[in-house]
Amino acid sequence: MIFKSLYNRIVPLRGHLRGCLASQSRLYTSNSPELEIIKDAHKKDFVILKLDRPPTNSLNLDAVKDLGYQIDIFEQNPDLKGVIITSELPGVFSAGLDIMELYQAEPERLESLWAGVQNLWEKLYGSQKIYIAAINGHSLALGCLISMACDYRIMASESNFRTGLTANRLGISPPSWIMDTMKNTIGHRQAELALQLGRTFTPEEALRVKLVDEIVPETEVLEAAEKQMQRWCQIPSEARGISKQGLRCDTINRFKLNRVHDLNEFVNAVSSEQVQASIKNYLKQLKEKHSYL
Amino acid sequence: MIFKSLYNRIVPLRGHLRGCLASQSRLYTSNSPELEIIKDAHKKDFVILKLDRPPTNSLNLDAVKDLGYQIDIFEQNPDLKGVIITSELPGVFSAGLDIMELYQAEPERLESLWAGVQNLWEKLYGSQKIYIAAINGHSLALGCLISMACDYRIMASESNFRTGLTANRLGISPPSWIMDTMKNTIGHRQAELALQLGRTFTPEEALRVKLVDEIVPETEVLEAAEKQMQRWCQIPSEARGISKQGLRCDTINRFKLNRVHDLNEFVNAVSSEQVQASIKNYLKQLKEKHSYL
Amino acid sequence: MIFKSLYNRIVPLRGHLRGCLASQSRLYTSNSPELEIIKDAHKKDFVILKLDRPPTNSLNLDAVKDLGYQIDIFEQNPDLKGVIITSELPGVFSAGLDIMELYQAEPERLESLWAGVQNLWEKLYGSQKIYIAAINGHSLALGCLISMACDYRIMASESNFRTGLTANRLGISPPSWIMDTMKNTIGHRQAELALQLGRTFTPEEALRVKLVDEIVPETEVLEAAEKQMQRWCQIPSEARGISKQGLRCDTINRFKLNRVHDLNEFVNAVSSEQVQASIKNYLKQLKEKHSYL
Repeated sequence: MIFKSLYNRIVPLRGHLRGCLASQSRLYTSNSPELEIIKDAHKKDFVILKLDRPPTNSLNLDAVKDLGYQIDIFEQNPDLKGVIITSELPGVFSAGLDIMELYQAEPERLESLWAGVQNLWEKLYGSQKIYIAAINGHSLALGCLISMACDYRIMASESNFRTGLTANRLGISPPSWIMDTMKNTIGHRQAELALQLGRTFTPEEALRVKLVDEIVPETEVLEAAEKQMQRWCQIPSEARGISKQGLRCDTINRFKLNRVHDLNEFVNAVSSEQVQASIKNYLKQLKEKHSYL
Repeated sequence: MIFKSLYNRIVPLRGHLRGCLASQSRLYTSNSPELEIIKDAHKKDFVILKLDRPPTNSLNLDAVKDLGYQIDIFEQNPDLKGVIITSELPGVFSAGLDIMELYQAEPERLESLWAGVQNLWEKLYGSQKIYIAAINGHSLALGCLISMACDYRIMASESNFRTGLTANRLGISPPSWIMDTMKNTIGHRQAELALQLGRTFTPEEALRVKLVDEIVPETEVLEAAEKQMQRWCQIPSEARGISKQGLRCDTINRFKLNRVHDLNEFVNAVSSEQVQASIKNYLKQLKEKHSYL
Repeated sequence: MIFKSLYNRIVPLRGHLRGCLASQSRLYTSNSPELEIIKDAHKKDFVILKLDRPPTNSLNLDAVKDLGYQIDIFEQNPDLKGVIITSELPGVFSAGLDIMELYQAEPERLESLWAGVQNLWEKLYGSQKIYIAAINGHSLALGCLISMACDYRIMASESNFRTGLTANRLGISPPSWIMDTMKNTIGHRQAELALQLGRTFTPEEALRVKLVDEIVPETEVLEAAEKQMQRWCQIPSEARGISKQGLRCDTINRFKLNRVHDLNEFVNAVSSEQVQASIKNYLKQLKEKHSYL
């Protein structure tokens, strides 16, 4: 039933969402798939949400909106205890915001984009439900932020993978609510280092500072996430959710006071000549490397 | 002299307290012993307070009150630098609040109980004196909270022992001041994990997240605590106490603003059908296991 | 050009400052050298500031003022990205405030001294520039505070060296902004332990709690600092600086509200009979040990 209601509402949604039923057979595939939801009939308490926007799960405006919309649907479902967020693409959880959304963008679109990111974070970070990030590869910038807004993070242990908040490398200083989220996750000191330097962490390094809670080989990430989710689902939901919100409410309240200001700051910062030059240069490098990351 | 004044005031106290003099011979034993105070004449700066309520040092209303009253006496003694809190019972520091106080309890009694817990924590956490927890075995829920309100924690290293705040497992979400205490002890991220899951830690795990500061075999816990206490007693008391209060005052001030609200919340939460059903189920499990923990 | 402007302004400065040019030949030496600035022509982005007040770089009123003045000059230079702070003296970064300034001092001088310390910390901790501490030996009290106000700390790994905030041992409780700085560096719990006990850390211990970020042999400290500085200089300066200030502004704002109160408290505390007796006793011990640390 959970799935059906999801399914019914997904189809009209600009065709960006794919849904799968138990035993993971695909019901529906759009031409521009972005999100896929798997509901295993044997695991009634939670769903698996798979990001699927090749080649790197970079999130453009539509994807950010769709993801937020999907989270809303989960949140309104009283029977659902938790969500595992993972990626359909091997070796990459998410490369973060689609850089093309930031390059020579119109202010109105930038504003929609960032409002979407704000809302997405606010929903995840303040939710009473359980969110577990199954980080099956690289997870940068917004990818890393989404995982930090979850309750538990399992990352693929292969040493070539990286995670971190890299915005400062493009000259974009993360807003205070993102810095607070990182501070709550790895502590004030490690957040100072990671944020100032836009540092990326190997899985081992991420585990050491507790940016992730567990590392396992890529092929075992989802299984480990399901195991962990089952453990979390056994705790009485209401008390657990209240504890979570109690610990995070200071950060969320501070964000709320600052929401509009933060939106303006982001649009202004990204629109500045300096940042646009950084992005142009970054895009040139990506092209030369024939790489998306 | 310290001891005498303690002793004089202990006897009328509903007979719950036992006192011991130097060389640890017992002066006085009540029929329902709950707290025992040992004053070693050779160690003039501190006393040892032993919890003694078989079988698990679970704390009922009387024990909570007595303990608070005893702390008051210590606090009013200008010659006393510190207190070691430990247990007379092998293998258990404290199982926490006496669950029977929570089951089908009258609201008035619940209110007294929780006000007692609030006061006890406020005194310990905000004290200028040195409190060291010699955790000689299991230490759960209120037992863990008492130890976190101390300045230093030494736990028995035997791997079967557990410590942690387990309230969420019964569907009771800890109030913000307890969450703040844990956050101050093990950091925001580890507190999120531990509180949401009502997680219990082995001695090794507790040491790793610094929920305890040191682990030694059960038989050496008290000795290690005395050694540590002697070290702390060498620091000028006033400056040390001011530093401690300075670091903890934000947490205590926040608690004070919220004291009445927290009291009502506790009574309502515990009285709810949902929590009462959890407790009933838990009591049934304890009975089936023939266990008190 | 950077150097020249520094040099021009240094000479008249009560003769306390020495300046050196590239290839580190000394241009100028005063009779009472206290600070030495090295500008390597090949490393245009940063300068090296060497403390040089034998035998232990203890900082008296003049040295505190000079250091603050020098930081001002750095801060006003838009071409300068960062500063490495280190010591010219083998085996000692700084022993902290000159204890002689605290003994039988006039209140007015104490006030100037502490206002100088407040200003120095405020400038360093709130700066948008990069400060790296190359801690080539012992670093106590104010020495440790200066290093904590930097962005990165590399300490000499030789096991006889110590670092920490030791004020409580003299009966002087550090003010809240110093405690906040330590909390931001090593976390609430480790700060409680370190501050209450006035604890000093070996290099290994300091690394474990992250009071320093890296340890290398004394002879390699400066080289490691330069390497680290080059890495930091590659990050876009403005975004990096905003991130740093964003993470530290709560602490600095809290300090500002409390600046005058803190100044009075310091003067009163140090002038008290109790603290003066402690200092007298400490000076006697130093004399008996024929030691400066």
